[in-house]
Amino acid sequence: MTKIKCTVAYDGSGFHGYQVQPGKRTVQREIQAALARMHHGQTVKIAASGRTDAGVHAFGQVFHFDTPLHLPEERWPMALNSLLPEDIYIREAEEVPDAFHARYAVKMKEYRYRLLTRTEPDLFRRTYTTHIKQPLDLALMNRAAEAIVGTHNFSCFCAANTDVKDKVRTVYHLSIQPENNDETVIRIVGSGFLYQMVRIITGTLLDVGTHKMAAEHVSEIIAGQDRQAASATAPPQGLTLWKVTY
Amino acid sequence: MTKIKCTVAYDGSGFHGYQVQPGKRTVQREIQAALARMHHGQTVKIAASGRTDAGVHAFGQVFHFDTPLHLPEERWPMALNSLLPEDIYIREAEEVPDAFHARYAVKMKEYRYRLLTRTEPDLFRRTYTTHIKQPLDLALMNRAAEAIVGTHNFSCFCAANTDVKDKVRTVYHLSIQPENNDETVIRIVGSGFLYQMVRIITGTLLDVGTHKMAAEHVSEIIAGQDRQAASATAPPQGLTLWKVTY
Repeated sequence: MTKIKCTVAYDGSGFHGYQVQPGKRTVQREIQAALARMHHGQTVKIAASGRTDAGVHAFGQVFHFDTPLHLPEERWPMALNSLLPEDIYIREAEEVPDAFHARYAVKMKEYRYRLLTRTEPDLFRRTYTTHIKQPLDLALMNRAAEAIVGTHNFSCFCAANTDVKDKVRTVYHLSIQPENNDETVIRIVGSGFLYQMVRIITGTLLDVGTHKMAAEHVSEIIAGQDRQAASATAPPQGLTLWKVTY
Repeated sequence: MTKIKCTVAYDGSGFHGYQVQPGKRTVQREIQAALARMHHGQTVKIAASGRTDAGVHAFGQVFHFDTPLHLPEERWPMALNSLLPEDIYIREAEEVPDAFHARYAVKMKEYRYRLLTRTEPDLFRRTYTTHIKQPLDLALMNRAAEAIVGTHNFSCFCAANTDVKDKVRTVYHLSIQPENNDETVIRIVGSGFLYQMVRIITGTLLDVGTHKMAAEHVSEIIAGQDRQAASATAPPQGLTLWKVTY
């Protein structure tokens, strides 16, 4: 058996998230269906770096699988892309040592959250951005971000419905920058992220940027370890899993 | 009765074109359904500046309708948008004289055709651009464009299945310009356009830009008035009805 690591982009708009669910169109299901066709109907399970929720996109999601096929590594993307729907695209593939695991070997993940920051909505970007009509104070948001960077117990930024016990994570980078005239991009890099952590951080930064919450309050929220103290979860549309580093 | 003129944007990806067809999701059907709800179930027919094909987008399509309702003109966009699906957005509305007609009063139309011009595809732009892998010679394309600008019989750029007799139109402007690093935009402004004219012109310009056709050949194609001499129709994805002028 050969272990293949793939980097995949997908448009989350048309999926009920990454993970297989009975009767639902999911990313994992489509990729496994394509792999099954390549393996004469045999099931090939893939393991990804983590799940993404419905509506969340990926530019650099990573998964691995084991295969008995002897295909040169550079042939996998074209072979799979020819069988995959147009909203999934395998960007790269490489053979990896048997010890590799797309989930357990993750060193860092980068997410980007894209905001449309102008008065008018844009229906062509409605699934790739979250529209924020009010002006955002980026200086305040970046000040609040400084409190989030570092190693903390991030219970305050974790959705309640999770089994994860250890809520300590490290955020290496968090910045909020304007882009393309009318967008604002939140870039966050961390050792790993709790369930809906990026979207809750985004919601909190948005409250700071619209003067609903003081930037200084964010460190108290983190110290308090209480999800209720943080802001509402931002919608999935603006979120993209950008890069996974091993 | 009051006559209302609306400017509407729509994402063509999810529609079987603009015009009502039995059993199909079309732009006209959705707008008329929203109007019917505002008019207590009564049918309100709309007349647009022209049809758009399946997959073609609009930023500035225009339509009109007559209504017995006494709603201030500035209230129409919000009222309709609250009833319309998220891939249709009324940008403006205004009361117009009874003599106005969205189709017959058109003075000029502008279309834009957006190409993704880089090696890698981008699944996030797959419905808004047409991907051209080969490098494009924009200077050659702009030279070919010069032959198209002007008043001509455009039979060569008209799809065969049309009832229109008079095929003389005026193209006021046609330019091909790079945009946003990895896109190329074809802008065309004319007195009116024949069926699939913009997409056939785009296909022809692409053949010139990839050295499959000489730029000088385009004036011969126009003079010949033969659809077979022009290139294949470019796909609908990159095309947007940008603006209608009255």
